[in-house]
Amino acid sequence: MIFVSDNAVGVAPEILAAMTEAAEGSHLPYGNDVWTQGLEERFKQVFETDDLHVMPIATGTAANALTLSAMMPAYGRVLCHEVSHIYFEEISAVEFFSGGGRLVPMPGENGKLDPADLRRHVERGRRGNLDPEQPFVVSISQMNEMGIVYQPEEIARIGDFCREFGYPLHMDGARFANALAGLGCAPADITWRAGVDALSFGATKNGGYSSDAIVFFGPVSRKDVELRFKRSGHIFSKAYALSSQLTAYLEDDLWLRNARHANAMAAMLADRLENIGIRLESRPDGNEVFAHIPDDAVTRLRDAGGRFYPWHLFGDDAYRLVTSWTTSPADIDRFLSIVSASAA
Amino acid sequence: MIFVSDNAVGVAPEILAAMTEAAEGSHLPYGNDVWTQGLEERFKQVFETDDLHVMPIATGTAANALTLSAMMPAYGRVLCHEVSHIYFEEISAVEFFSGGGRLVPMPGENGKLDPADLRRHVERGRRGNLDPEQPFVVSISQMNEMGIVYQPEEIARIGDFCREFGYPLHMDGARFANALAGLGCAPADITWRAGVDALSFGATKNGGYSSDAIVFFGPVSRKDVELRFKRSGHIFSKAYALSSQLTAYLEDDLWLRNARHANAMAAMLADRLENIGIRLESRPDGNEVFAHIPDDAVTRLRDAGGRFYPWHLFGDDAYRLVTSWTTSPADIDRFLSIVSASAA
Amino acid sequence: MIFVSDNAVGVAPEILAAMTEAAEGSHLPYGNDVWTQGLEERFKQVFETDDLHVMPIATGTAANALTLSAMMPAYGRVLCHEVSHIYFEEISAVEFFSGGGRLVPMPGENGKLDPADLRRHVERGRRGNLDPEQPFVVSISQMNEMGIVYQPEEIARIGDFCREFGYPLHMDGARFANALAGLGCAPADITWRAGVDALSFGATKNGGYSSDAIVFFGPVSRKDVELRFKRSGHIFSKAYALSSQLTAYLEDDLWLRNARHANAMAAMLADRLENIGIRLESRPDGNEVFAHIPDDAVTRLRDAGGRFYPWHLFGDDAYRLVTSWTTSPADIDRFLSIVSASAA
Amino acid sequence: MIFVSDNAVGVAPEILAAMTEAAEGSHLPYGNDVWTQGLEERFKQVFETDDLHVMPIATGTAANALTLSAMMPAYGRVLCHEVSHIYFEEISAVEFFSGGGRLVPMPGENGKLDPADLRRHVERGRRGNLDPEQPFVVSISQMNEMGIVYQPEEIARIGDFCREFGYPLHMDGARFANALAGLGCAPADITWRAGVDALSFGATKNGGYSSDAIVFFGPVSRKDVELRFKRSGHIFSKAYALSSQLTAYLEDDLWLRNARHANAMAAMLADRLENIGIRLESRPDGNEVFAHIPDDAVTRLRDAGGRFYPWHLFGDDAYRLVTSWTTSPADIDRFLSIVSASAA
Repeated sequence: MIFVSDNAVGVAPEILAAMTEAAEGSHLPYGNDVWTQGLEERFKQVFETDDLHVMPIATGTAANALTLSAMMPAYGRVLCHEVSHIYFEEISAVEFFSGGGRLVPMPGENGKLDPADLRRHVERGRRGNLDPEQPFVVSISQMNEMGIVYQPEEIARIGDFCREFGYPLHMDGARFANALAGLGCAPADITWRAGVDALSFGATKNGGYSSDAIVFFGPVSRKDVELRFKRSGHIFSKAYALSSQLTAYLEDDLWLRNARHANAMAAMLADRLENIGIRLESRPDGNEVFAHIPDDAVTRLRDAGGRFYPWHLFGDDAYRLVTSWTTSPADIDRFLSIVSASAA
Repeated sequence: MIFVSDNAVGVAPEILAAMTEAAEGSHLPYGNDVWTQGLEERFKQVFETDDLHVMPIATGTAANALTLSAMMPAYGRVLCHEVSHIYFEEISAVEFFSGGGRLVPMPGENGKLDPADLRRHVERGRRGNLDPEQPFVVSISQMNEMGIVYQPEEIARIGDFCREFGYPLHMDGARFANALAGLGCAPADITWRAGVDALSFGATKNGGYSSDAIVFFGPVSRKDVELRFKRSGHIFSKAYALSSQLTAYLEDDLWLRNARHANAMAAMLADRLENIGIRLESRPDGNEVFAHIPDDAVTRLRDAGGRFYPWHLFGDDAYRLVTSWTTSPADIDRFLSIVSASAA
Repeated sequence: MIFVSDNAVGVAPEILAAMTEAAEGSHLPYGNDVWTQGLEERFKQVFETDDLHVMPIATGTAANALTLSAMMPAYGRVLCHEVSHIYFEEISAVEFFSGGGRLVPMPGENGKLDPADLRRHVERGRRGNLDPEQPFVVSISQMNEMGIVYQPEEIARIGDFCREFGYPLHMDGARFANALAGLGCAPADITWRAGVDALSFGATKNGGYSSDAIVFFGPVSRKDVELRFKRSGHIFSKAYALSSQLTAYLEDDLWLRNARHANAMAAMLADRLENIGIRLESRPDGNEVFAHIPDDAVTRLRDAGGRFYPWHLFGDDAYRLVTSWTTSPADIDRFLSIVSASAA
Repeated sequence: MIFVSDNAVGVAPEILAAMTEAAEGSHLPYGNDVWTQGLEERFKQVFETDDLHVMPIATGTAANALTLSAMMPAYGRVLCHEVSHIYFEEISAVEFFSGGGRLVPMPGENGKLDPADLRRHVERGRRGNLDPEQPFVVSISQMNEMGIVYQPEEIARIGDFCREFGYPLHMDGARFANALAGLGCAPADITWRAGVDALSFGATKNGGYSSDAIVFFGPVSRKDVELRFKRSGHIFSKAYALSSQLTAYLEDDLWLRNARHANAMAAMLADRLENIGIRLESRPDGNEVFAHIPDDAVTRLRDAGGRFYPWHLFGDDAYRLVTSWTTSPADIDRFLSIVSASAA
């Protein structure tokens, strides 16, 4: 009954197998190995474009902060949701990587940015007696911290806003696979086709060992990005350690299969909780369920080894339940039986 | 009819005289001159404490950002009002000086922080599923960007909150003299006696040439602060250039006399505007009047050479009128006559 | 014939086994797993002290730069050798992590710092008409970029200097195991007993997958260091990914066995090269041989798949040959036979 | 007998007069005043080009560090002399402003960079097994810390090197007027015509109150530079405070007249010291004399109120004597009479 997070479960066997295969051979360091050198081609296929650069990176925080730092000057600003991961849970990593930039927390229903709010914010600055206009970047999370997914056309509207004002658009895709599995569209539809310039592509939460990736769509100074990797200590001499994971992750749609399973388990969990009268914050778009659970049920669940975080954002009785590629219907049965007993 | 800002008017003759006197002699550089060496003693008298360190600095933005950077680690956070000068008008100076810290914009009536909001913010973090607890600094503006002054007991309540949590308290006093003149209390009453640890002490807006000061109450590493001055290019080899201004500013209560005059002119302006039916945002506590002026009056005023900023924060017909030590009743007469004509 | 670097070879099977074991289970994230929680105890045994903090980190550059940033203020300075890895091969990572600190390149025979030079540098600053005294950290590499090892008493003399002036002492131990295997002393003898305050403890180059560690001896603010990890994107949610490697690395002296083997292969390679008249830059203390190889031999070696870097530091005919835990006598036979053929 | 520095003497009356004139009027803030708006035109005339941007700045350290930060990315490197002011006397201001760049100290006779050394350094990096190639900026001082001046053709050779490699060239001109007065050429000849892209233009040391300027030759993002000013607290709301000084400084060749006088006094001092057998480090090119003075003479001079710094760089008996626009032949007479007495 581990619902604490999708990073709390084991590693997909296909990924472990690739890592092991890579680790048994010798490879020239710093990316001059077959795993790393084949990776970009795979991403090009997945994203249906040749105009793309990929760099593996060990953590999601580094992926977000390093990417954003490459998209703006040191005094730049990132328009992001006030409950986005970069603003709320990654300390001041963006401020650090950028050398003193600023995250601007924006409101927005369901954890989503609204182009109208973005426009208002920017135009107020332009008319302003106040703050002079700054170079902005916009960052959205797909899916976001409330477990909600942007529809392709919602992203496209933000992309249109960005193009109008000349701002780059970044997507935090720590749970990109879950978003995609829910939408059923092509990866390109919610990235470059909708105006996204750079993507933090998550794998760790969906079966990886510890590897995400940065994907730039369109022109980027690869040397600039590599120097940012190096000075932040994110170059792996054994580059295959990361790229072998990502290779297996994309092979035979493992990433989508894992995400579909996790999403299905979340849907099942949501249905069954609602059936017994547990109020949900919203219907899950991916693999996160936010539920209002009575105190006595929480106590019983914890006593039985249940692991999950309170989510005060939604109230004192709110909890986040995250499913993963390892969640089984039996886990859900067990969880429900304990909650029901208590609800009864 | 210059109401654009109190930094748009000339320099007080007493200050120019002191600058000239200093500039005519030879002085060892880097503060080894009589003007700089006598300065701390004057501040100790004004603030009624020996436990104080003063360092002149050329601009208010530098005063705020450098001081805050000395009060927190590079990943620290500053709780400040969402319309504070440091958040709204000084770009990311604090982020730059601190090496990647963050300003946390807080709401609050009349531009004032409320200890209850601060407590809620901090406790949410402590309980949090979200952002781990950070080292915080609290920063308030006296008077603030809405022209409002904190009462001594309001500051003391914020000071109590800071002591309870172990956070330092900073005050942006760009218009400290105007606040003080309005309150009629002792400088100590709204600084160290109320729990303020460091003050950005403004002089430029109140008759100075270009000099403010940083005042630390209580222990501080002077060497640390001086190295921060040096690496940000804020050490003046001709230190007397700043300290002579500040010396004259404090002499014979020049600072308070100038501020009282500016405040009295603002009160007169406010009274007379209200008398002819112009709506004010609030009664001025200091030398700033925020008024809702009809478009035709604005046009006439500008045609007649009137200078003042729109203040969109309060609406499309809102304007900020700042009085200064140079504002005369005749200026106000003229302003009113033009507004009245139009209102008629 | 991979002599390009010890990071160009595969991963030790014992380490892969531990990683696999860890990856198959569920673990609470962010270090709340058995692998991570047991790690500090193992380091305490290895280093014979309880006064020690360990934090796994993915790369050596991050280990060095993050550690140094925690040992000095943002305007601090690191006295290091002019051919140290931190100065010569890690770009400006220290400058980045520290927020603008400076590395001071020092000369020194055999890539070693000499306490007399350190003293001269510091005293010149103290007497100086020039740069005011800065807070310093001293950083040494064990073993260093020239393949040379500090004797315990040499480190102790640097440690004494540091204590006299109040400077912390850091050791870059990317090849710490190789140094130790060469010296045959206890880990404590070349670290805390000799005055070292913090150690970048390498594992990647000696059979690891991709994991090093930071070891602080004596008091340190763990929270400060953790926040530095987080803001630089070096917190692994799956902390076991790193700690499982380190656990296996220390188990049954794997680290020392691997290092002893690599060192023995380097000694054999050095002996045999000298026997056929190839000049070495110095006798290898660890697993690096710097040899002056004729051009024709280099061509033949490369044609036969030999991989190694030129090392211009020692001249145009100088090459670095790095042995590892995987190097076999057969590799050396083959290398020698090709060199000999050419020398003949 | 103030020879401690040219920043230890008073302010030129012409400059004080302009400051006073400016300070007595009202001016729109942030550069919208006649003094600031006319400044660029004056610089265009002085430098014989329209392709130039000028921004006044309060200190030389800020001028250097801010300018260099605008000429390179955060991970850039500045090739500078090992006894340049930016490396030796301005702490880590460049590292701070750039967000973690690095100063690379280079040797060079008489405090001058040699293009051959620059080439060697850069090419070693290019061939290197070591540090990957970085974006470089070159910075030279005119005149330099050893009181020596670059000839126009020496600068042009460095300029040629920079153009070949695509590196920008910066000049620290804290004593630019003294250099120019010594050379007798046009300002353009030692700046843009010789390949200089940006100049820190000093005025404070040559009669200013406290103001230098940054001059960019050729294209530059003015907005980028202004945002760097703002976030480092170097925007003066009363911009005329700086620009009035610079206006008077350039009027009627005041800057050159002051510098010629200071240089003439240095030449006289040097001649007379040599005449009585005092060894000089070199013939002065500008207004700095480095002399080896016996201990007893130093004691007598100090007892008589003489002020000057020891200059350990040139040995334990070396002293720096700086003349200024206020130095009189009588000062030199008195200095010499005391030295002679003692030498006798």
